[in-house]
Amino acid sequence: MAKSVVTPWEVSGNVDYDRLVKEFGVSKIDEKLLERIRKHAGELHFMLRRKIFFAHRDLKWLLDEYDKGNKFFLYTGRSPSGPVHLGHLLPWIFTKWLQDKFGVELWFQFPDEEKFLFKQGLSYEQAQKYLFENMLDVIALGFDSKKTHFLVDTKNANLMYGEACKVAKKITFSMVKSSFGLNEQSNLGQIFYTSMQAVPAFLPPVLKGKEIPCIIPHAVDQDPHFRLTRDILPKLGYYKPASIQCSFLPPLTGSEGKMSSSESIKGILSTDSPADVKNKINKYAFSGGQATVEEHRKRGGDCTVDVPFQYLKYLFEESDKKLNEIEKDYSSGKMLTGDMKKYTIEKINNFLSEHQKRREKAKDKIPEFLLKI
Amino acid sequence: MAKSVVTPWEVSGNVDYDRLVKEFGVSKIDEKLLERIRKHAGELHFMLRRKIFFAHRDLKWLLDEYDKGNKFFLYTGRSPSGPVHLGHLLPWIFTKWLQDKFGVELWFQFPDEEKFLFKQGLSYEQAQKYLFENMLDVIALGFDSKKTHFLVDTKNANLMYGEACKVAKKITFSMVKSSFGLNEQSNLGQIFYTSMQAVPAFLPPVLKGKEIPCIIPHAVDQDPHFRLTRDILPKLGYYKPASIQCSFLPPLTGSEGKMSSSESIKGILSTDSPADVKNKINKYAFSGGQATVEEHRKRGGDCTVDVPFQYLKYLFEESDKKLNEIEKDYSSGKMLTGDMKKYTIEKINNFLSEHQKRREKAKDKIPEFLLKI
Repeated sequence: MAKSVVTPWEVSGNVDYDRLVKEFGVSKIDEKLLERIRKHAGELHFMLRRKIFFAHRDLKWLLDEYDKGNKFFLYTGRSPSGPVHLGHLLPWIFTKWLQDKFGVELWFQFPDEEKFLFKQGLSYEQAQKYLFENMLDVIALGFDSKKTHFLVDTKNANLMYGEACKVAKKITFSMVKSSFGLNEQSNLGQIFYTSMQAVPAFLPPVLKGKEIPCIIPHAVDQDPHFRLTRDILPKLGYYKPASIQCSFLPPLTGSEGKMSSSESIKGILSTDSPADVKNKINKYAFSGGQATVEEHRKRGGDCTVDVPFQYLKYLFEESDKKLNEIEKDYSSGKMLTGDMKKYTIEKINNFLSEHQKRREKAKDKIPEFLLKI
Repeated sequence: MAKSVVTPWEVSGNVDYDRLVKEFGVSKIDEKLLERIRKHAGELHFMLRRKIFFAHRDLKWLLDEYDKGNKFFLYTGRSPSGPVHLGHLLPWIFTKWLQDKFGVELWFQFPDEEKFLFKQGLSYEQAQKYLFENMLDVIALGFDSKKTHFLVDTKNANLMYGEACKVAKKITFSMVKSSFGLNEQSNLGQIFYTSMQAVPAFLPPVLKGKEIPCIIPHAVDQDPHFRLTRDILPKLGYYKPASIQCSFLPPLTGSEGKMSSSESIKGILSTDSPADVKNKINKYAFSGGQATVEEHRKRGGDCTVDVPFQYLKYLFEESDKKLNEIEKDYSSGKMLTGDMKKYTIEKINNFLSEHQKRREKAKDKIPEFLLKI
């Protein structure tokens, strides 16, 4: 098993989430917290039931504040660097659920400089193209335009850069070096960048002139950014942002690393056709099944490594009952790999068909989401 | 004699300009270049005649382009961190002369984050207060509002931050460490900052979609910033900016370092009253005169270290004839220290009286100068 690496810019190897919880110092989401969320939301999202969102910081405090009538706002984001794949959609789908259930504002950051600064081969113009494309995917998920504000680093810099400087003054190079794997050969933009990522966590309080609790739904690899943000914000007179963190959707090729749109075998993209999806799942999706039908019938498949099953669990099979049946049937050998793949392809294509229609309509809606300040 | 230090953030000791020319690799402005400027301008500014502006980069190229009909633009600036003193006014007065004589645009940068990032004790709010105050002094000098654009880093960041990231991607930490005296304890904003200072040198070309030569009038201590800018801009497809560089107005206390508004004995501020000026010159201005009138009559004074004489030379006595007379009379002992100080006080107060009237009127003019893009 390859030793795993988890930083904001690299996720590789077989991720040991229990080790991450310890190393990062985050807390697991316990039953008591789940119960409180269920009470407010009237239900529990399957990503919570299945512990896909598994860790947090200060969630208890956030709910305490909410109970006192002190509503939080949501902050999440997307660095445009390529097309959106299923792994990106996962935390956003959950974020939309939180917005709907708690009736709160969402600040969605598009740090359109980040990947340009971190990827040697990515031009500024390419990043801008993806910025537009990626916005369509976010809007297609159905966020409430009245409660959702897009924050684009280079386009909202009049608001953000001065605030980022306030953060930057509190962070030395030696503080970020270790947490972000930077060194003396890192460029000046990479070194400064985390200051910009901190800004949305306190921009609504800046604009409204009062403290407001913030919670950031994000994949666990982004924790180093926000750990630093949490250290700095109280020094500027703001609350530490809370967070709720998810594990990674596995890449097609198996359970190591996370889905990526820059690898040679791409993940499933939000714009893939039914034939693309069919081909990718059939050709590349790592199977937990046995080498032959006979052997599979006899020994059964392994759902814990079966990528199609993982996609059902993470995204496409909302019914626990159905998911349990599939797990049972596949593990016992009753369900074959071909059936598993066929069912998953259908589920993904149903989702994408709707998503792509909404994505097309989103082209006219971008102005409604752009921050007008 | 104290060893001199000249960096963008510290000037101390007795500055050896010949050594700086060699160390920085700038060129001295020779007679041939002066002649070309005289031809275009119809005259030579006294700061050129007296070699107060003494060094340059690529001035010959800039004039060649101008001769071909390829007009340059001017770029200079001011980091708000305190009140404006006479030393600040010096390069701006010369910049206005260049604008008038060559009929060119000026982009005047106010990096309102710089000193906030570099001075532990300076708050963001204080810097903003000085930003407003400092703008009044610039406007009071009479720049043409139709051809002068103020560029405020935090207020024009929508235009500047993205461009700064393009610069930042080309500069590593190890590249700035040596030139700017930064280290691992430097904050992230300090490290990023030089990228913002590079932007005005190519922003007009960005906005107009074509290459345009740029010349930066500045005090020699800022050369490390622009040396780096000159390395980077060709990589982004722009001309290297030319520069024309001046020496420092000496502080009241003598010929070491430069005038500063943050030292305990302040320089002469643009808002000083006639009594303030009289008091500062009489009480603090280092004199090249002798200890007693008798000795002075006998041995004469030393103009090279006499601060009032230097102020006349740098700023307040435009007539070479009159300046030569004063130099002769003071050196021979005919003119006494009291007379030298009295004459200088009068000259400064005449200037400030007019400046302060224009400064008052400038309060209504700021919007004309702010960049509206």
